[in-house]
Amino acid sequence: MVENGIFVVIEGLDGSGKTTQAKILAQRLSETYSTYLTAEPSRGKIGTFIRERCLYEQTRLPIEAEALLFAADRIEHMQTELKPALDQGKLVICDRYLYSSLAYQGSSGLSLDWIKTINARALQPDFSIFLDVSPERVLERLHRKKSVMETMETQRKVREVYLKFVENGELIRVDGDKTREAVADEMYAKVLDLLRPVKGYVS
Amino acid sequence: MVENGIFVVIEGLDGSGKTTQAKILAQRLSETYSTYLTAEPSRGKIGTFIRERCLYEQTRLPIEAEALLFAADRIEHMQTELKPALDQGKLVICDRYLYSSLAYQGSSGLSLDWIKTINARALQPDFSIFLDVSPERVLERLHRKKSVMETMETQRKVREVYLKFVENGELIRVDGDKTREAVADEMYAKVLDLLRPVKGYVS
Repeated sequence: MVENGIFVVIEGLDGSGKTTQAKILAQRLSETYSTYLTAEPSRGKIGTFIRERCLYEQTRLPIEAEALLFAADRIEHMQTELKPALDQGKLVICDRYLYSSLAYQGSSGLSLDWIKTINARALQPDFSIFLDVSPERVLERLHRKKSVMETMETQRKVREVYLKFVENGELIRVDGDKTREAVADEMYAKVLDLLRPVKGYVS
Repeated sequence: MVENGIFVVIEGLDGSGKTTQAKILAQRLSETYSTYLTAEPSRGKIGTFIRERCLYEQTRLPIEAEALLFAADRIEHMQTELKPALDQGKLVICDRYLYSSLAYQGSSGLSLDWIKTINARALQPDFSIFLDVSPERVLERLHRKKSVMETMETQRKVREVYLKFVENGELIRVDGDKTREAVADEMYAKVLDLLRPVKGYVS
């Protein structure tokens, strides 16, 4: 489906510094490439509904409904932002994508196969990176931001699913338990490595 | 999944009189049974979002996103209304359900198999009735209500999908091209017939 651009996804636990690192990465890459930074849930109609009305609510939606909503947002995001940017040959960096659904709803008990099936109409990324930060460190950061919703047990389960996809080669692991600068350097180096074999991207 | 209650779905084109007939049917049945009348999109969080922000908008969502949203609403509806009512042994009448997704999104080009898969976690109805009114009559009614969004071509395509499921026995057809009273009588007689073999429902 991708015509010209390259689609890179950054995945990780809440509080892993993923959003900050995606920004730094996009900033650095934009010196060489026409870069487009985006995130999920998206800024579209469905993504806004998820962020404003579903996440962080006292009464959580059934897990299957949540998974379907994220998949619906992914389709809207694809049509309105991802595909247009990729069609213009851009390097798209997306903060969270399919593996967030697999890791979060999957670790809550939903079948990974079913999550993949309901997402079968969404664009496949060229590369997905998992910024791996220990659940202990993540919880410490979330406590500081006073936004902690999850327990150590949840974090561990979510990380386990992510690591399963690292093992089978679908996700590329970057060690996030270092200083922000060291992580940023590793992310940048990794992405350049991944881009090198892509025709027309790096000489 | 159904413990005690019976789950009956009424399907049909916009303007087929389906909502009116569902009300009359529920009213009649409530003289004998503990009846619960509901509809999709539901009154829940996702159903309200669909009705207020997605249907009848100038910019339509991608058809896959629409199908996923309806499937998400169906799960929320099931958890918050359908299952609780059925668990109490009620006779649930639902105005639109799975076959609306199949007929509407399916006639827009989505694969029926994929629509069934994304809805695989939703409750299966015991009986689904298709109130069949000719597209010509439906359009005439919609024009009178000035709420017409669809063309004859769309109505025909949607009806074709419904009729496919009548042919394979998943939907039970009721002829809607008669007076309101005659249709109501046929609906009521049909549902009583369907309930007759259900243990504990009719003596």
